[in-house]
Amino acid sequence: MTLGKRTGIILIIFQLALIVAFAFVATYGEEADSKNILPNISTNIYYPMFQDVQVMILVGFGMIMTFLKRYSYSGAGLNFLVSAITYQYGLLLQRMFGPLRIGMKNLINADLTSAAILISMGAVLGKTTPLQMLLMVLVEVPICMGNQYLSTFLQVADIGGSVSAHTFGAYFGLGLSKILGKPKDTSLEGPSYQTDLFSIIGTLFLWVFWPSFNGALSWEDGQQRAVINTYLALIASCVISFAVSTLTHHSNKFTMVHIQNATLAGGVAIGTVADLMVMPYAALLIGGLAGAVSTLGYVYLQPWLLHHLDLHDTCGVNNLHGMPSLIAATVGIIAASQASLEMYGPKLYLLFPARAPFPSSKELKDIQVIEEKVIPGENRSANRQALYQLLALLFTFTIATIAGIVTGGLLKLFSPWIGNVSDEDTFDDRFMWSVSDEGDLDDTKKFKSETNIQPLSNHNHHQIGIV
Amino acid sequence: MTLGKRTGIILIIFQLALIVAFAFVATYGEEADSKNILPNISTNIYYPMFQDVQVMILVGFGMIMTFLKRYSYSGAGLNFLVSAITYQYGLLLQRMFGPLRIGMKNLINADLTSAAILISMGAVLGKTTPLQMLLMVLVEVPICMGNQYLSTFLQVADIGGSVSAHTFGAYFGLGLSKILGKPKDTSLEGPSYQTDLFSIIGTLFLWVFWPSFNGALSWEDGQQRAVINTYLALIASCVISFAVSTLTHHSNKFTMVHIQNATLAGGVAIGTVADLMVMPYAALLIGGLAGAVSTLGYVYLQPWLLHHLDLHDTCGVNNLHGMPSLIAATVGIIAASQASLEMYGPKLYLLFPARAPFPSSKELKDIQVIEEKVIPGENRSANRQALYQLLALLFTFTIATIAGIVTGGLLKLFSPWIGNVSDEDTFDDRFMWSVSDEGDLDDTKKFKSETNIQPLSNHNHHQIGIV
Amino acid sequence: MTLGKRTGIILIIFQLALIVAFAFVATYGEEADSKNILPNISTNIYYPMFQDVQVMILVGFGMIMTFLKRYSYSGAGLNFLVSAITYQYGLLLQRMFGPLRIGMKNLINADLTSAAILISMGAVLGKTTPLQMLLMVLVEVPICMGNQYLSTFLQVADIGGSVSAHTFGAYFGLGLSKILGKPKDTSLEGPSYQTDLFSIIGTLFLWVFWPSFNGALSWEDGQQRAVINTYLALIASCVISFAVSTLTHHSNKFTMVHIQNATLAGGVAIGTVADLMVMPYAALLIGGLAGAVSTLGYVYLQPWLLHHLDLHDTCGVNNLHGMPSLIAATVGIIAASQASLEMYGPKLYLLFPARAPFPSSKELKDIQVIEEKVIPGENRSANRQALYQLLALLFTFTIATIAGIVTGGLLKLFSPWIGNVSDEDTFDDRFMWSVSDEGDLDDTKKFKSETNIQPLSNHNHHQIGIV
Repeated sequence: MTLGKRTGIILIIFQLALIVAFAFVATYGEEADSKNILPNISTNIYYPMFQDVQVMILVGFGMIMTFLKRYSYSGAGLNFLVSAITYQYGLLLQRMFGPLRIGMKNLINADLTSAAILISMGAVLGKTTPLQMLLMVLVEVPICMGNQYLSTFLQVADIGGSVSAHTFGAYFGLGLSKILGKPKDTSLEGPSYQTDLFSIIGTLFLWVFWPSFNGALSWEDGQQRAVINTYLALIASCVISFAVSTLTHHSNKFTMVHIQNATLAGGVAIGTVADLMVMPYAALLIGGLAGAVSTLGYVYLQPWLLHHLDLHDTCGVNNLHGMPSLIAATVGIIAASQASLEMYGPKLYLLFPARAPFPSSKELKDIQVIEEKVIPGENRSANRQALYQLLALLFTFTIATIAGIVTGGLLKLFSPWIGNVSDEDTFDDRFMWSVSDEGDLDDTKKFKSETNIQPLSNHNHHQIGIV
Repeated sequence: MTLGKRTGIILIIFQLALIVAFAFVATYGEEADSKNILPNISTNIYYPMFQDVQVMILVGFGMIMTFLKRYSYSGAGLNFLVSAITYQYGLLLQRMFGPLRIGMKNLINADLTSAAILISMGAVLGKTTPLQMLLMVLVEVPICMGNQYLSTFLQVADIGGSVSAHTFGAYFGLGLSKILGKPKDTSLEGPSYQTDLFSIIGTLFLWVFWPSFNGALSWEDGQQRAVINTYLALIASCVISFAVSTLTHHSNKFTMVHIQNATLAGGVAIGTVADLMVMPYAALLIGGLAGAVSTLGYVYLQPWLLHHLDLHDTCGVNNLHGMPSLIAATVGIIAASQASLEMYGPKLYLLFPARAPFPSSKELKDIQVIEEKVIPGENRSANRQALYQLLALLFTFTIATIAGIVTGGLLKLFSPWIGNVSDEDTFDDRFMWSVSDEGDLDDTKKFKSETNIQPLSNHNHHQIGIV
Repeated sequence: MTLGKRTGIILIIFQLALIVAFAFVATYGEEADSKNILPNISTNIYYPMFQDVQVMILVGFGMIMTFLKRYSYSGAGLNFLVSAITYQYGLLLQRMFGPLRIGMKNLINADLTSAAILISMGAVLGKTTPLQMLLMVLVEVPICMGNQYLSTFLQVADIGGSVSAHTFGAYFGLGLSKILGKPKDTSLEGPSYQTDLFSIIGTLFLWVFWPSFNGALSWEDGQQRAVINTYLALIASCVISFAVSTLTHHSNKFTMVHIQNATLAGGVAIGTVADLMVMPYAALLIGGLAGAVSTLGYVYLQPWLLHHLDLHDTCGVNNLHGMPSLIAATVGIIAASQASLEMYGPKLYLLFPARAPFPSSKELKDIQVIEEKVIPGENRSANRQALYQLLALLFTFTIATIAGIVTGGLLKLFSPWIGNVSDEDTFDDRFMWSVSDEGDLDDTKKFKSETNIQPLSNHNHHQIGIV
């Protein structure tokens, strides 16, 4: 059986299994239930930001991943397939933490989970089969959600999921990529003029809608800050990325891959504190710093990791998601340690619920007079909150890296069943797509023959086979 | 007079005529009227979903129709022009059913009408002149709107317009295409690597915003369900389309045209019941089924229709809109027959108004105590409602097919005035666009000469002429 | 020091300076301040339209500016960089008019300012260095904002900023371009099939979201009219642009650059009166007129200006923004002169606040009984309001043109420091971008050698240098 046939059969079995599982556990949430006669929550509260995030996941990530000159079908296509798989699987696994009554918040949470998975995919793009991706999803989603639950349990602030989605996704992906090894044939690892253009448009969608990503689950004044802080951080990371890109290029020119990625680093770096009172100048500073670190990562660290650690990272997720999320976590620790009743007013206890006074304490009652939405907490101090923020980072980083490495081992172990990508098929759409346009194939042949790789004409008759 | 000149003159006359007609019949709706001193309905209730649908119509449809390698200008351009014509003409014809006081709901209804027209266009893309398109719009819009009015009169559920827009548009287009005949020169009928990429981005926009399409005219809990059900149906049709695509390919690879289209079939198939209590698992099941049927349609049915019925379908609208909309109607019949007070509560009578008890009956008063928005109905039974759903489908299918065939006859009849596309101009932008870039023309020449078609250099000096 | 290195250093200094300035003057607005315990204004009031405008600025303008065949990186990239610079600089300069407490309205105003700057950039695209762009921003933003403030002071209607953003941006850019002179090497000044496609997708985004641009700062019934009028004006300008495009082409074919631009002219031309009671037919008429004027501008006026006045306009901003904004201003004068209490009811005084009766007059009190939001005005007559509308146009046109010419002089004066673009680098991405893909470079070489320009292979080793 070809790998392609097996892929089709397994996808169908997977989908049928999920339908059965949904039949047993999933119903509509209260606001989507016709029998609910309570006054209705308007769809509009979550829906517009949900749609913005959907554009980011499908169009933004989808387009940004088309940058490889002969892997654009796969970049957009695998992003699409993996999103569709992750959305429903992530929804189903929300059942782990309570009844699955589907409403808009469930869909937004599924989006945040899928962001982590797509980041991981970015590290191994062009080097994996669809079934390897499926196995990765099956393993990564529950671990990622479990880790998110841990953050919730620790009551840490991370409104934009910089730690729970970006740190997790990036280091899981890098762990996985380390085990899969670096590709030998890199003749197709690079953009064309056209695919670079597709990719930068994806960047622009991500840049525009990132405030919705960081603000989708926040509320009222916090949501306003999430939008404003993210907007400012992105602005500074854009400017600084252009600057550092030209300063680090041997002829002092802009490099497209930096502009496609590092301009977004501010959105990651501000994510943990986006809804906090960090002040506009600090949002700019954090964003600018992230833009610099991210660009320098593309220029210096990524080649270093490849040559010294054999760690290959197709999209540079360490630069766009990994390191900026470490900045985010650090900023989160600092912001948590500085957050005070003076700075925030009683809403401090909505943003850091564990810091609220003990149940039935006099302090709690006084606060509730001013801000009735405050619920009892554990009277956590600012420094203790900062410590919890640090713990959440350490747990996330450790769990993600180990899980990525183990998953890499699983992908190798199961390669007789789920296949792997041989050297000559790396970064090549024709491995899994019917690419019938002869004019275009000729161009590719030219690309390869210029770099003294064996002619690819036999690819046309080439099936996806188990290696 | 060249056809191009005639096109320009007729478009100007058409536009001036519409301006005069608007001057006589169109005013602002209550919520857009400065003199209205009632508390204002916020723009925000309909506007965000309206904008989502606008992105679908202009950008989504526009990009998905760029897939032909030398007809991308026309794909995006004709979609743009036909939308602009249909919007205003559809708005004007709303006058048939009452005073034309323009508000957001009117604009959304114009969008739904234009969706039907663009679907029809998909069946004959690359084979028609702009004036043929204009005549098609002039004939199709009033018939489509009349048929929609019939559905409203029959009080059938079809919130996403799967029958009234998709069934209608697809079978009208196929009827039209049957009469226009199949193209003889298909040397340009295929994508390039770049145009396939443009097209799949259009798919992603349609996929992301389809929940807004199905939910734009629903409300409260029904709108939440419309969003959730559509989202789930699309997810399953994506996964199953990838699966069936690889299973049906001779080398078990993914085929781009399936991914561009069949992944969306779930949005069509769930449209009729999107706001009903179908349950999440059923939404997945319906979407998955539609994805399979749609992909199989591209692989087996479309070539069969071409070879045995001489029925040519450029975009495969039968696969993406036709058959999935028949699934939608079938599901609608089943859902209507099963809908009960137990399952829906009193809101049953908001979703199926004809099922509400008779005026001034005791049952009605009891219901209105719980749900005051219920208005008197005709006490229709569930099975009778199902019968009406079936009738609406049969009427729509019949009216659309016959109207399409008749319109095809009109297009042929008027071809001395509105032109037609000769064999050598089929699927070729240069028929109606100034394509000045020589580098690109050379590429095309290469495509054609490889397939032993006469050289196209004379096209450069070639005017649009009446045949 | 290379120009590229200098660009990087100056961008970093600029960004750091802004961070320091924000630290001193910027805080969160009331609705984004955690300490504010007043009932919160929902983010949703302004946020969805703000996001629509963001898509226009970054994606719409970004994509439409990719049309040059070898300047697409720069088109999208400079649009991105200049937006990021303008957003934060424009926000900072809002401090000129009061405390800088950042909320959604501030962000929307920064968007409107950036629109003006990007329009100016369109006139000189391909002919300027990034540092020239930066200097332009530094000079243009305060003048543009000062002129906007003048319009506010004059209490003129211009809800979509047609005069304050479009007239200003276009004539500033044309003044600037006049001084910079026309390019000698125009071998790369033209689209390719692929870049034309990117560009038309940008057009579609601008077209879809323009109602949000014109409506973002309006409210209630006025916002509804802004949406409806803009939608109708765009529809007519689309149809008429297609018509005039084919009528003015020597072979009566559509020309892509008209469709990319003139279809949007209706959005500009309706901008000043978008929220007024102009009636649907008039919105169509205004849009259709603008589409015709804009297309004729591309066909006749733009070449005339180039050959007789040496005035080069890369994107044709005079056609899309300049002349349509003069239509907008004219329509605004007429609408202001016709606006009456009979036509508008008491809300007249919300749309034209200066027309409200004098403080503590009996008329004011009578009006406030019906419409409590009316505040005292200066009892301005309709004709006087029309005069003020005319004054605002004259001031804007004059200030913009002179400021553009002076800024052009500054750009020349400082060219030893900020560089300029030599003839051979005009419209060429490789001037400032690392374009590494050899396959694509070969294509370009072919374009150029066909037009008998010196071979460009030496470009590869070519640094950005001070001329």
